[in-house]
Amino acid sequence: MNLLVIGTVAFDAIETPFNKIEKITGGSGNYICHSAAHFINDMNLVAVVGDDFDQDELKYLKSKGVNLDGLQIKAGEKSFFWSGRYHLNMNSRDTLATDLNVLANFDPILPESYKQPEMLILGNIDPHLQIKVIEQLENRPQLIAMDTMNFWMDQTPEALDKVLKMVDLLIINDEESRQLSGVSSLVKAASIIKSKGPKYLIIKKGEHGALLFHENRIFFAPALPLEEVYDPTGAGDTFAGGFMGYLAQTNDISFENMKRAIIYGSAMASFCVEKFGPERLKTITNEELQDRVQAFVNLVDFNIEL
Amino acid sequence: MNLLVIGTVAFDAIETPFNKIEKITGGSGNYICHSAAHFINDMNLVAVVGDDFDQDELKYLKSKGVNLDGLQIKAGEKSFFWSGRYHLNMNSRDTLATDLNVLANFDPILPESYKQPEMLILGNIDPHLQIKVIEQLENRPQLIAMDTMNFWMDQTPEALDKVLKMVDLLIINDEESRQLSGVSSLVKAASIIKSKGPKYLIIKKGEHGALLFHENRIFFAPALPLEEVYDPTGAGDTFAGGFMGYLAQTNDISFENMKRAIIYGSAMASFCVEKFGPERLKTITNEELQDRVQAFVNLVDFNIEL
Repeated sequence: MNLLVIGTVAFDAIETPFNKIEKITGGSGNYICHSAAHFINDMNLVAVVGDDFDQDELKYLKSKGVNLDGLQIKAGEKSFFWSGRYHLNMNSRDTLATDLNVLANFDPILPESYKQPEMLILGNIDPHLQIKVIEQLENRPQLIAMDTMNFWMDQTPEALDKVLKMVDLLIINDEESRQLSGVSSLVKAASIIKSKGPKYLIIKKGEHGALLFHENRIFFAPALPLEEVYDPTGAGDTFAGGFMGYLAQTNDISFENMKRAIIYGSAMASFCVEKFGPERLKTITNEELQDRVQAFVNLVDFNIEL
Repeated sequence: MNLLVIGTVAFDAIETPFNKIEKITGGSGNYICHSAAHFINDMNLVAVVGDDFDQDELKYLKSKGVNLDGLQIKAGEKSFFWSGRYHLNMNSRDTLATDLNVLANFDPILPESYKQPEMLILGNIDPHLQIKVIEQLENRPQLIAMDTMNFWMDQTPEALDKVLKMVDLLIINDEESRQLSGVSSLVKAASIIKSKGPKYLIIKKGEHGALLFHENRIFFAPALPLEEVYDPTGAGDTFAGGFMGYLAQTNDISFENMKRAIIYGSAMASFCVEKFGPERLKTITNEELQDRVQAFVNLVDFNIEL
């Protein structure tokens, strides 16, 4: 299946307790495409950058099958810039700068060739823009997934509620799911969130894995215990991109296949954190990916006869 | 296999954000026995209480096959008392009182009938006492497991180092493993801790599950996502008791069987948190336990062909 992606394409500056980089490409749309490109070569990206953006990165994405007809390049303007500093545990971070730049007036216009997607993922971006994308579609995709964050829960709750009613799958983290539902128990939170619209919910718990909820079913996927996390930036988007890419590649959006897609998404995320930015995602071989997935299989493998 | 247990038998006072109880039985040895008793009826308990302790609780343990010949009852003295208050997230708590009482001068003396155990679990207690128990044994048990806590890492690091060299399996939580190893990554922490003695290490992560490390192998078991946690007190000891009880019942201490034992231990812990104290552990039916284990199987079940 083909995949339509909306999200940010940006520059990041990142500090971890051990390393630092002044400028590297980032953004939700960028990470999603890098990750999904391991599974499919039929993607359409809607996003905006300034003319300062890295041309090599765009060439690379194109070479991987990402159609950039919907990528607006604003002459004389600067790309979206985010800067953050991770705490010692690498699980939390402070945002040091968020310069919207081109993103401030972004109007996501879908080229004609984008308007009949089989799958759609709405990366973390203003819910008003997520809605605008859906409203331009000529058909209902088989699966619409979305990400969001607490900023939009605080700033644009009505638009967020509206887009939640339009999607099939919400992918957020544990803290976001607690904020969105107003309750602490993730099981209860999942019921409340599903009542807001999405039939499927993935709650990401970072180093503690991820939960998939659908009807009264729950699936839990662990995260791989890692010796070292070099840079967690983009891991969530990489997970989402791998998840959607795997579903699109296998042409199967059943619950059973979503379980497998979560394992593949988690495997992709475990690569992402090994280097700054999307760098590691560019070099993953098929064999490395299979080995990583096998490690997940082994990690939770047990056999009980009941 | 028979199981020798040393640990505390105590009264607790517990406050959660939603409920409160002034006095209920608790203690590591008590929870371990309650949990292991679902699997075996051949246990020996070494512990101490005052003559204020609940006689019905002791009768109950006896009826479940727990030999109390090694339980010292100190006339005119009070039982160990612990009081704690849980935070809103139920994952952390403040200790409000720790009255050692009879525990202050506890000298664990093994009756002759206790001295040839097939399995031994050293519940969380002063490492000097854990060593004293091992030194009285006439044979080396097939498996010696121990629990400990950060208090002993701070107060009695030398005795702790000594007992670590004498045991096969250490069961601690993630924060304790970080403190004991001095590193943040659990994978690195596991290597460092195993180099201190235990061939096997279980790191409990509360609501995030548990990891088993042995040689270069890692097994991860999730915790069951729960709607409600009524009282987390004793969940870790219940896990340990269920784990050891299952190994003893099945007479198999292989890595493969330890994986199953972790699932059974986790299932027992998921019952423990449903009521104050060990109350819920007294009423679990075999059918309930099988259903709970099945829920674990379903939770992480996926099928990937590589």
